[in-house]
Amino acid sequence: MAKLQLVTASKEARAPRVRHSQKPVAIVPQPATEPKDHFITRNGMTYAGSHLIIDLWEAEGLDDRSRIEEALIDAVHAAGATLLHIHLHSFTEGGGISGVAVLAESHISVHTWPERGYAAFDVFMCGDAEPRKALSVFKTAFNPGRIVIGEHKRGVL
Amino acid sequence: MAKLQLVTASKEARAPRVRHSQKPVAIVPQPATEPKDHFITRNGMTYAGSHLIIDLWEAEGLDDRSRIEEALIDAVHAAGATLLHIHLHSFTEGGGISGVAVLAESHISVHTWPERGYAAFDVFMCGDAEPRKALSVFKTAFNPGRIVIGEHKRGVL
Repeated sequence: MAKLQLVTASKEARAPRVRHSQKPVAIVPQPATEPKDHFITRNGMTYAGSHLIIDLWEAEGLDDRSRIEEALIDAVHAAGATLLHIHLHSFTEGGGISGVAVLAESHISVHTWPERGYAAFDVFMCGDAEPRKALSVFKTAFNPGRIVIGEHKRGVL
Repeated sequence: MAKLQLVTASKEARAPRVRHSQKPVAIVPQPATEPKDHFITRNGMTYAGSHLIIDLWEAEGLDDRSRIEEALIDAVHAAGATLLHIHLHSFTEGGGISGVAVLAESHISVHTWPERGYAAFDVFMCGDAEPRKALSVFKTAFNPGRIVIGEHKRGVL
């Protein structure tokens, strides 16, 4: 099913922490009439899309709902994807946040544990979107000391 | 990061197709005050939760929004999880559907390509929920000829 790839990035190697939000964001009215999740063929392989499993450690701002929402939206833009719906849920004060962004190309989700400096993202994008471009947005937004990435090619024919 | 596990199931081996919806469903009012996504320790390993990457092939009903919504809700119940928010999006008539269920324990998502008989689920559950119990719900709901499952342990300490 999947190519599993592990990548780590040290705190020293990351880019300077500059926020560059592209808000405000227009969410496409529903129903969207054209899907953007067509199968793709790359390097001789035909599949639905790439699903990145991203763990951030030693990360900041994981109890900051607006920072998380902004990062999700910025990641959608960076990847060239189309936002259809976004929802965030805050747990107890200072506790974790869950967020999902439904896209014309699939979704991004995040769940955070601020007390552990840990955030669990997944970025699944089909068609012509570029899910790896979300990574630099997450690095900038949450300043992680360490990132671990797994990748699944979904729907390989 | 992850244990990757592949499992396939043949069409012959599946359970009889009996629907057993547990609707109506009460969605917990927001904000939920207590997170249910605490880290767990099993077999000497401490981690946030299990994230299942589930591909269904030769599946039925993938353009049926109500069937998909019902399956998501039934899967939440089967796993012993708590539904906070659910959202489905239909693309063009007869086309695919995207759905997300945000849980107190993380999330379930699905994206379908009816024209290929293909559905891409992911089920991420933390704490005491049992994400593998969602599988029998998906088998019953969509009658797949083949299932491929990958598993990531998320947030391993």
